[in-house]
Amino acid sequence: MSVRCSEFSFEVQATDGDARTGVLKLPHGEVKTPIFMPVGTQGTVKAMTPEELHGDVGAQIILGNTYHLYLRPGLEVIEAHGGLHRFMNWNHPILTDSGGYQVFSLKELRKIREDGVEFRDHISGSKHLFTPQKVVEIQETLGSDIMMAFDECPPAGATDDYLAKSLARTTRWEKECLDARTREDCSMFGIIQGGTSETWRARHLEEIAVMDFEGLAIGGLSVGEDIEAMYDTVAFTAPKMPGDRPRYLMGVGKPDDLVECVTRGIDMFDCVLPTRNARNGQCLTSEGPVVVRNAEYAKDLSPIDPNCSCYVCKTYTRSYVRHLYRAKEILAARLCTWHNLHYYLNLMSGLRGAIEAGELDEFRTAYYARQGREAPCRP
Amino acid sequence: MSVRCSEFSFEVQATDGDARTGVLKLPHGEVKTPIFMPVGTQGTVKAMTPEELHGDVGAQIILGNTYHLYLRPGLEVIEAHGGLHRFMNWNHPILTDSGGYQVFSLKELRKIREDGVEFRDHISGSKHLFTPQKVVEIQETLGSDIMMAFDECPPAGATDDYLAKSLARTTRWEKECLDARTREDCSMFGIIQGGTSETWRARHLEEIAVMDFEGLAIGGLSVGEDIEAMYDTVAFTAPKMPGDRPRYLMGVGKPDDLVECVTRGIDMFDCVLPTRNARNGQCLTSEGPVVVRNAEYAKDLSPIDPNCSCYVCKTYTRSYVRHLYRAKEILAARLCTWHNLHYYLNLMSGLRGAIEAGELDEFRTAYYARQGREAPCRP
Ligand SMILES: [Zn+2]
Ligand SMILES: [Zn+2]
Repeated sequence: MSVRCSEFSFEVQATDGDARTGVLKLPHGEVKTPIFMPVGTQGTVKAMTPEELHGDVGAQIILGNTYHLYLRPGLEVIEAHGGLHRFMNWNHPILTDSGGYQVFSLKELRKIREDGVEFRDHISGSKHLFTPQKVVEIQETLGSDIMMAFDECPPAGATDDYLAKSLARTTRWEKECLDARTREDCSMFGIIQGGTSETWRARHLEEIAVMDFEGLAIGGLSVGEDIEAMYDTVAFTAPKMPGDRPRYLMGVGKPDDLVECVTRGIDMFDCVLPTRNARNGQCLTSEGPVVVRNAEYAKDLSPIDPNCSCYVCKTYTRSYVRHLYRAKEILAARLCTWHNLHYYLNLMSGLRGAIEAGELDEFRTAYYARQGREAPCRP
Repeated sequence: MSVRCSEFSFEVQATDGDARTGVLKLPHGEVKTPIFMPVGTQGTVKAMTPEELHGDVGAQIILGNTYHLYLRPGLEVIEAHGGLHRFMNWNHPILTDSGGYQVFSLKELRKIREDGVEFRDHISGSKHLFTPQKVVEIQETLGSDIMMAFDECPPAGATDDYLAKSLARTTRWEKECLDARTREDCSMFGIIQGGTSETWRARHLEEIAVMDFEGLAIGGLSVGEDIEAMYDTVAFTAPKMPGDRPRYLMGVGKPDDLVECVTRGIDMFDCVLPTRNARNGQCLTSEGPVVVRNAEYAKDLSPIDPNCSCYVCKTYTRSYVRHLYRAKEILAARLCTWHNLHYYLNLMSGLRGAIEAGELDEFRTAYYARQGREAPCRP
């Protein structure tokens, strides 16, 4: 049996259909699920301080990117600080990806081998080899509360032949990741691949679920498939994932996706959308998107989201934020990011409350109604 | 007699040589002098929130740019918010320039007339005319605590002929600015020009000092003259300025300049240097400049300034800030700006304390010694 995390627990607290709330205990603190994890690719959630994130925004856990941190600043620098938490001054839980997704995205610059992936990085063009052992070593150096196993995300529309080969290799790599663990203060999640095929997802889930992972993730979605296929895949996969372990849907998604996938049994999410959109002047609000750079907001004295209680909405007008955006002021990115993340975290908090109250249906109906839309049928 | 500000007062509290401390009461609050005013060109001190500025950084008054705000977002937008304070959520004093300096800097795009300056703006190329009446109207719409009179800043090396003509026109414009005032909750400072010539400065000061300005400024320095000429000009001008009114040295300067010009009797400063340098990864510290992007700081676990008590220095390492800078993260600009402004405001606070204690000489000696330099002789 491989090393296990001694400071990890997960307890489901309430359910409503396939949806559930829970408490996830990790080495750096507790997380209430379902939760959204802001993405901190390069050792910072873009434009935010840790205090803002954990305070007004309400973030409980953030995500770090192994590939990026490994390249820059490099492990030696982070190790000198005693790990990623201290490097970036975030004293709460961190989940890191394995770097696999970024490395596979390099396309012409990488070569899949049976023992790992060879690649040239996008910064200096130097050659590297990521193996299951290597990505665990990196993540343990970062000191992640949740490390992710090394997997291949097969391209959308991959043939059965390709899938069979890829999934077998991923299963082997994930097993090797477990075997490579040495730290009892880092947990590890396994990843289920299989595209949008119910058969392949079920088959791969069976292989991964029997392993000693503290939690399980659905990988390989939100990579170009249509939204119905994504929701269906979550609907037929999540409920089969062991109920006593957290379920993480990687790289998803839009606010609708959070609502729909919580309904389908997901506990954890991450996505660059709220932060990336913010830097383009696109705000997400309870009444739908507000593209704050648009001329219609030039003299709009209302807050970005009239139903939001975040610092930005309590303090500034759309007109002011639009001015900042047009004037290319750094504060524009700050304020839009702050609001968008608060909106996401507040949405998750609303979902938790609805599940606890057994009122998820009502919550969904109201969520869509506020945007002038109808709720899709529950799965 | 023109309109005067009913909520303005200035009281000198302590002196040490030509240096003095004072309390400046303005419609939006009190300012302890000598003071440095962070520059908020476009309705934001770049990368900072008002709470950060007034809180940890310790800013008491900031500067806004009439030319920039007039063009974008435009007066209608700021008027809809009830003025610049509410637009940008800064509920403390604001000083605005007259826009003259920016307009004169447009060179080919502007034409000096006897009644004002005609120019095409740098954004849309539209035609505008700034007159004394117009710049007062704009600044009253902004609702500045301190408006600046409209002046011409003569080019460095201007002939006596040019100076004579320019200063006469400036005097007339300044008088017209006073006559154009309508608001009793906005004060106005006059500006003394005259290059680095003791004769011209004295002559112009005489003309401006007799007018009903609540304070006086030295303009036209830090425009390319050498540092000794700048210090000399301040030394022979400031002590002749009426002692019962605040003395503002426009657009200055480096930390050394603050120390030297406070010593020579200046009460107020503004400069883009601490904010602009910050965005280039250049930090100003008690031990001299720290170019935090340099490789020597790659694994430096010390704070930007070991003698600084700001949030940034209490929280982050040089190594981390360097990483943020190399990764082009917004947080790099935020942290460097925060520290630099704190350093400036803290330096001013140190100068105030030294003057109160009658220990300005000792303060200057220690200031230079900490950077391994010797204090220049006092004027
Ligand atoms: Zn908000
Ligand atoms: Zn500092």
